[in-house]
Amino acid sequence: MENDQATQPNFSVNLPNTGKPKIVIIGGGFGGIELVRKLSHLDAHVILVDKNNHHTFQPLLYQVATAGLEAESIVYPFRKIFQKQKNFIFRMAEVLEIVPEQNNLKTTIGDLAYDYLVIAAGSQSNYFGMKDFKEGALAMKSVPEAVAIRNLILENMEKALLVKNKEDRQALMNIVVIGGGSTGVEMAGALIELKMHVLTKDYPELDIASMQIYVVDMEDRLLRTMTPHASFHAEKFLNNFDVNLWLKTKVVSYDGKVLTLANGKKIFTETVIWAAGVTGALVNGLAAAEIVNGRIKVDPFNKVHGYPNIYAIGDIAGLTTEATPQGHPMLAPVAIQQAKNLGNNFNKIIAQQPLNPFVYKNPGVMATIGRNHAVVDINGLKFHGLFAWLTWLFIHLIALVGFRNRLIVFINWAWNYFSYDRSLRLIMKPPQK
Amino acid sequence: MENDQATQPNFSVNLPNTGKPKIVIIGGGFGGIELVRKLSHLDAHVILVDKNNHHTFQPLLYQVATAGLEAESIVYPFRKIFQKQKNFIFRMAEVLEIVPEQNNLKTTIGDLAYDYLVIAAGSQSNYFGMKDFKEGALAMKSVPEAVAIRNLILENMEKALLVKNKEDRQALMNIVVIGGGSTGVEMAGALIELKMHVLTKDYPELDIASMQIYVVDMEDRLLRTMTPHASFHAEKFLNNFDVNLWLKTKVVSYDGKVLTLANGKKIFTETVIWAAGVTGALVNGLAAAEIVNGRIKVDPFNKVHGYPNIYAIGDIAGLTTEATPQGHPMLAPVAIQQAKNLGNNFNKIIAQQPLNPFVYKNPGVMATIGRNHAVVDINGLKFHGLFAWLTWLFIHLIALVGFRNRLIVFINWAWNYFSYDRSLRLIMKPPQK
Repeated sequence: MENDQATQPNFSVNLPNTGKPKIVIIGGGFGGIELVRKLSHLDAHVILVDKNNHHTFQPLLYQVATAGLEAESIVYPFRKIFQKQKNFIFRMAEVLEIVPEQNNLKTTIGDLAYDYLVIAAGSQSNYFGMKDFKEGALAMKSVPEAVAIRNLILENMEKALLVKNKEDRQALMNIVVIGGGSTGVEMAGALIELKMHVLTKDYPELDIASMQIYVVDMEDRLLRTMTPHASFHAEKFLNNFDVNLWLKTKVVSYDGKVLTLANGKKIFTETVIWAAGVTGALVNGLAAAEIVNGRIKVDPFNKVHGYPNIYAIGDIAGLTTEATPQGHPMLAPVAIQQAKNLGNNFNKIIAQQPLNPFVYKNPGVMATIGRNHAVVDINGLKFHGLFAWLTWLFIHLIALVGFRNRLIVFINWAWNYFSYDRSLRLIMKPPQK
Repeated sequence: MENDQATQPNFSVNLPNTGKPKIVIIGGGFGGIELVRKLSHLDAHVILVDKNNHHTFQPLLYQVATAGLEAESIVYPFRKIFQKQKNFIFRMAEVLEIVPEQNNLKTTIGDLAYDYLVIAAGSQSNYFGMKDFKEGALAMKSVPEAVAIRNLILENMEKALLVKNKEDRQALMNIVVIGGGSTGVEMAGALIELKMHVLTKDYPELDIASMQIYVVDMEDRLLRTMTPHASFHAEKFLNNFDVNLWLKTKVVSYDGKVLTLANGKKIFTETVIWAAGVTGALVNGLAAAEIVNGRIKVDPFNKVHGYPNIYAIGDIAGLTTEATPQGHPMLAPVAIQQAKNLGNNFNKIIAQQPLNPFVYKNPGVMATIGRNHAVVDINGLKFHGLFAWLTWLFIHLIALVGFRNRLIVFINWAWNYFSYDRSLRLIMKPPQK
């Protein structure tokens, strides 16, 4: 059914024609939904465009991928979030191209005229031009991708029962995580739990102890955006559980079964998870804009260079300052704070008054690495272990959208913790006709 | 990835070769899992073959389809259910053909030899040869199908916003349920709630009041397997909420947009849900077996006619007696009771001793029709309304597999009840590369 909307000529975006300014926001991630909220009192149409009808809480995707959470509990429908916001309009569509000279968006559901445009399209997996991995590795940027990882891990276990050749069996059981940032580390930690507490019991016919989990990264330490203290504890924890850490190591090629590293080593694996980096999910049409490290360059007010009425926030926005020569980190707090600042500025933008520049307040960085273990860097403080882990749980729980989701996630976490189980190990296939 | 196992020649089912009898069960529905459980103390290999790795609680699929429950909460992995049962072996595969003269099953993962075979493959949608509906209507026999219904209803609402033509818009909003049995009635009741309490709030731009829900059935009353008392109350309830009931009415054709009835009326709809009947999910290869109304004829011990070591239980088994000339109803209690009786007989089957025949104890029939309303027929007792509804909720909650699932379903029900909300209105698409 994908995009068959585009083929139906009698479709049009059908927006109200009231003369009020139209503020169009591309993308309902952390930045997009915060901005919609901040604009709730504006006498304008706040139009959110997203290809999904729901917000996705990306920091917990790895738990969906490892059978710890149901997909539904980390997503929330936009129409529900903003049900009471009168000036909110949602359109489910993919943006094909921006036509700035016409103040127009080309989308899969037709043309959409804007007065102000805010690009909050987020990021996408960056394969650094490596075709093998673009085709053969699994990304984890959306719910369907996370479910696909869960399906593949479990399907491969079922297949491992059926092969007599040892190399083939190892390839089906081994899992390689490429990238040792927080996504990679959290994924590896969750895979340890899946292996130790679930797969061992579920597959008595297999020698699960021989299953290998690898983390491969080019840098010389895990969690390179955190302190060396955090890296040390993450590495120690993963080493304790026999995760194979290949640091300062590049991946070279992958044929669907054998992954080759720059040092010549080969890993037999049919499950490769790509957590090695993301880049801005760029939108076509901004010829005058400058692209910095895959992100759209913006000024301190998040305005895109070269366009009077186009803004960008979050992962896709590159705000280079002396303190952030590469732009700010691609993290939810940056997107949310930029959305707040831009939201507060919007009255002034419409009235053409001077704006307040964006100043990032770093709330800290954290990563969970496994049962009872997390690492946290906050304002020069750095701690690890149980208290860090509880901090991580608490922060993520309250950041989820919707009380029902918080409750369901909390129950799942408590359940998984006390039962050492991950009940959601389900292979869900698309319907057949 | 579907069935790519079949193409890999180095796969084999890899079963242990211990000399113990191999009892192979096709299908892990209500009958299949009950039988596995009953055979736990047998000195044999109990081998379950299913195309999914999980049991599906089919009676609640309609709540997944109408955004009331997450898919994961009504399914449960087989390996988890039987983690502690030593003689249990699971193989995820589709059965292609039975070769009775060789005591062999041909499957997508290779040949599987059995000593005893139990067919518990359940039922599939019966389109009575109507190609239009096989292609254009949505069935609701599996989780992916239920999620597909949820996706389609919500996608069509999003599309309805985009069309100017009134007929096109009505077609996108209207929903036709074909079949007025319990599945159709429960679906219609849930659609009323979705329309009244969710869609009205989510789509202020649409005239949701003009959205029509239809139930079409050939019989002269809803819930024809229940008492006229139950039918009366179901019809009254649905009429009160302006559901269009077309009884004694056949469907004739459907072109994806216009559904034509035998009385010549046409309904504009892009959402047609098929709940008009099921037939046995027959397996190839049983040439000597007699097929009765799409089910495999069995004797009172559930043995398939013409084969010494093949049994069938549940929906697929046709056990015709004087009291049940058409076979038993295709309901979970029949499957479970047949599994229990066959399980109790299995020691005697192996020892070639006389068996106990199956006798059905009807525990009652029930259907929920909406908020605070259900109809129940138990042992000549018939009641409806709030108490019947609470009975329905309780029976279904305890019948779910796994305490976690019960807890999550209970919370969802409480949440939906008190908030008048159905939070899970999510369009989940397959991953894109």
